[in-house]
Amino acid sequence: MEAANQPREGNPLYFEDLQVGQQFLSGTHQLDAEQIQRFAREFDPQPFHTDADAARDTRFKGLVASGWHTAAITMRLLVGSGLTIAGGIIGAGCEITWPKPTPPDSILRVVSEIVDLRRSRSRPDRGIVTLRCETRDQHDETVQVVIAKIVVPCRTPVSGS
Amino acid sequence: MEAANQPREGNPLYFEDLQVGQQFLSGTHQLDAEQIQRFAREFDPQPFHTDADAARDTRFKGLVASGWHTAAITMRLLVGSGLTIAGGIIGAGCEITWPKPTPPDSILRVVSEIVDLRRSRSRPDRGIVTLRCETRDQHDETVQVVIAKIVVPCRTPVSGS
Repeated sequence: MEAANQPREGNPLYFEDLQVGQQFLSGTHQLDAEQIQRFAREFDPQPFHTDADAARDTRFKGLVASGWHTAAITMRLLVGSGLTIAGGIIGAGCEITWPKPTPPDSILRVVSEIVDLRRSRSRPDRGIVTLRCETRDQHDETVQVVIAKIVVPCRTPVSGS
Repeated sequence: MEAANQPREGNPLYFEDLQVGQQFLSGTHQLDAEQIQRFAREFDPQPFHTDADAARDTRFKGLVASGWHTAAITMRLLVGSGLTIAGGIIGAGCEITWPKPTPPDSILRVVSEIVDLRRSRSRPDRGIVTLRCETRDQHDETVQVVIAKIVVPCRTPVSGS
């Protein structure tokens, strides 16, 4: 999984440039309690995200990041990971799971892999790329898996088959 | 869809208290360009989220919120919508789609409905609730749909069938 086939940084990527199995490795993000609480106060104000003392009495036994915070950090890491899609990374939708919670001492990184490529039937100028993004911590444990459908422009639109 | 069957605010809800078809209506959130840009600078720094001028030359023709920002606002609205699950709203995972972009003048609200209830087979003390959350704007157009699996404790654990 670690031998990534990463394109040159900054090169705008079109549908034709992508292949199944291609990987993108992000940098890392060091989380901490202050970030967790700041995000949660604005977007997910529940005790296990906002209050370290109260969090000890919850099923998490301590502060953990909102799943939506983990998702947002993942996007940040993905944007800097060499997946420089022409026109930007624009998602149509995704499936997301959180196999384990993300505590404050986590150092996160994202390993993404293209798992499917499909030309749009109705719009010959674009394709749909299915990207599997695993967000892993410093122990190489996966805290989030996203299977995303990303809209990618074609360099050369085709018609017919 | 608007005749919600909302429980009393603040009452902790257990699996047994929930039924398919039950609805939860949130308050509203007024978005603006400053919020969109602030979120995007931290989590999704792409021109159509961070720069109103540059956004005009993108496929969105102007500033729009990151999908992850819409998701985070949705969570904030959901937490205040009367879905006062005992122990908190804890998601195992979800599917998410963004049928249309969310521009800066959006006033968002969330309409949620329980679409499935299932006792855990392996853990008799909990159930899995499937919740469909539509995030709608002031024109009643849906900007995001989340189908979430939420872990809910049972008041009375059962064993066997």
